[in-house]
Amino acid sequence: MAKKTVRRKKMAAAPAAKKPRGPMSPRDQRTMDQLAGLAESVIVAADKRRDPHMDIPTRALSNVRFNSAKRFIEMGNKTNRRHLFNLSQAKSFMQTMLVASGTKQLIEQDKTTSIRGLYYLLKHSIEGTKEETFADQGECDPVIEDTEVLLSALREELHLYAQKKGDMVGELILEDRGDEIDCSRMGSGGYGIPSIVEPDVIRFKKCNAKFVLHVEKDTVWQRFNEDKFWRTHNCILTHGGGQPPRGVRRLLHRLHTELKLPIYCLLDNDPWGYYIYSVIKQGSINLAFESQRMAIPDAKYLGLRSIDLERCGLSESVKINLNDTDRKRAKQIANYPWFAKKKAWQKEIKQMLDNGFKLEVEALISRDISYVTEEYTPARLSEQDWLD
Amino acid sequence: MAKKTVRRKKMAAAPAAKKPRGPMSPRDQRTMDQLAGLAESVIVAADKRRDPHMDIPTRALSNVRFNSAKRFIEMGNKTNRRHLFNLSQAKSFMQTMLVASGTKQLIEQDKTTSIRGLYYLLKHSIEGTKEETFADQGECDPVIEDTEVLLSALREELHLYAQKKGDMVGELILEDRGDEIDCSRMGSGGYGIPSIVEPDVIRFKKCNAKFVLHVEKDTVWQRFNEDKFWRTHNCILTHGGGQPPRGVRRLLHRLHTELKLPIYCLLDNDPWGYYIYSVIKQGSINLAFESQRMAIPDAKYLGLRSIDLERCGLSESVKINLNDTDRKRAKQIANYPWFAKKKAWQKEIKQMLDNGFKLEVEALISRDISYVTEEYTPARLSEQDWLD
Repeated sequence: MAKKTVRRKKMAAAPAAKKPRGPMSPRDQRTMDQLAGLAESVIVAADKRRDPHMDIPTRALSNVRFNSAKRFIEMGNKTNRRHLFNLSQAKSFMQTMLVASGTKQLIEQDKTTSIRGLYYLLKHSIEGTKEETFADQGECDPVIEDTEVLLSALREELHLYAQKKGDMVGELILEDRGDEIDCSRMGSGGYGIPSIVEPDVIRFKKCNAKFVLHVEKDTVWQRFNEDKFWRTHNCILTHGGGQPPRGVRRLLHRLHTELKLPIYCLLDNDPWGYYIYSVIKQGSINLAFESQRMAIPDAKYLGLRSIDLERCGLSESVKINLNDTDRKRAKQIANYPWFAKKKAWQKEIKQMLDNGFKLEVEALISRDISYVTEEYTPARLSEQDWLD
Repeated sequence: MAKKTVRRKKMAAAPAAKKPRGPMSPRDQRTMDQLAGLAESVIVAADKRRDPHMDIPTRALSNVRFNSAKRFIEMGNKTNRRHLFNLSQAKSFMQTMLVASGTKQLIEQDKTTSIRGLYYLLKHSIEGTKEETFADQGECDPVIEDTEVLLSALREELHLYAQKKGDMVGELILEDRGDEIDCSRMGSGGYGIPSIVEPDVIRFKKCNAKFVLHVEKDTVWQRFNEDKFWRTHNCILTHGGGQPPRGVRRLLHRLHTELKLPIYCLLDNDPWGYYIYSVIKQGSINLAFESQRMAIPDAKYLGLRSIDLERCGLSESVKINLNDTDRKRAKQIANYPWFAKKKAWQKEIKQMLDNGFKLEVEALISRDISYVTEEYTPARLSEQDWLD
């Protein structure tokens, strides 16, 4: 053990004197102020010989509501108090401060990491005990979410990135950490949408697009890109590899709010497709806090629709029978407050249940390889035939 | 039904007169010749009043061997004969011809689709019966693989694409379907590696890189890209989102064989990491046929290594205990012919089993956020300390 400790100290010496970061962005400065405020509150309490505590907004369904004026899901005002001097809360108090301190370190070094990286960064045995700071990542992730809501900071503002998936092409030139990316010159591969797309990293330079078409899957995206749909229709084409990750949702939100581009979603006609739309439009129930900077209440659901088997004259063979889970999920989604009052959505979901089958976007290929890009989507757009 | 038929005919009229494709690439011409040859063999047999049949190379472990001269897994010479006039083979004969005809259609239209797309394209009820051409995609996928080996054509040459994952940045300029992509100017997002990267789609224009660093996960890739490792070390940086998809493997193969770049793999120290390396280096057992254009026998395994907990002075907390599946998989991998004769690999795997724990690349963060990019990887490279 002695040898290892010595070696570790020796090796650890080098990275200590790292190059200092450049001036902080206003975003980083704001997050740092919030982190400092959290630390300050503990010091103030200690000075006054009071028990340090923090009030963490409750992340539970009971504290989530649909704001019908803003048209997205938001958190309520309930909080949970977490005390340092309380046996059942001391550990999570410590963990929260640890996460805050880890993100401070990231911002100071102007570096980012994954939530798994942060977990490894913070995981250690507490000196003189056999107690680990975190048993596993499952114990760390909720504390990261606590810290987000506590500081009113998006995870990306804490310099944490999520899984990276999703690509973009189309009539947009942007700047990504100083590099100019022309999304209309990205070949068949496209620009891989980063996890952190905040304005200090990604700047929109020039946009000729009139709207964004967001498709569910990479395979459908490839069809649209190969047919250069975005050029013919003057748009931006994105996918999120199924349920879009945070980076993709945030980018769509920025394209919508800053460049005023309508967002049209081409998703499967099944409960999973409905749910993806719901998250893009109204925000996620689990992370309601982020809705304000993620949700796009004006996003439109372009299809597929429950009438499409007949309307498009598809082969009966492309039907996929609904299973019990599908039926249960469909009914749950129909009852979401933001769908419950919309007649068109109620009709749509009822029709799918009556059909007894679901339809994937790929099913349109039974008409023609490019039916989806040359007929289906152009028809929906020109007829303004979508669900809201 | 009558109404639907009419409508379908009407709507189907438009796409019939599609713009003809340009001149065929040599690759497409070769594939078309093979497809024509397959059809021809049926006609010849019919003319001679003989039973049409085809001999499909056997895709099974029994017909796979490690070629120690070429240093990759290849298929043997065993074939299975499939007859049209045999009750138990007629359906799969028909399905194989159907897949061949579907890919012919794709090549003629100069379009590509996913294997799911092809399934939908070919799925229909056989006229006058209630029999479906394919019950589900699970019935179609093996027939696609049969067709690949039957025609000695990669799936990509049949105009079929796989899931798209993986990104690239670094000292390389390439041309992707006419667009010039400078991989050193791709910001934090990177160039999304397409599924089809054959030379008629992707051309290498200028390469200043001295090697390729392939990392397992997008999260690790983000760390390396943020630290601009590829600039400091004059290299190309790729990831494949875990087990790399075909496009990423094929691109690595082309970078290695055409640009003579060494490929270094930075993977987790666990059986899954070993397996990813094995597939990149020697090819996949299931798709041994492709090894010739996918496998990179000279690829090196840069780490993580079973000695790293001690060598790098990592915190004990980062260990992840091996479970039974890990132990079983590790022993299987140790017995692969291409690992069995390598002392260093035997020692490596034994050490992991003796340790009783595995290590993820992310564990290095317990030393420092950029320890992996600033110390670990540079040290392995400068000491040429890797496994072969």
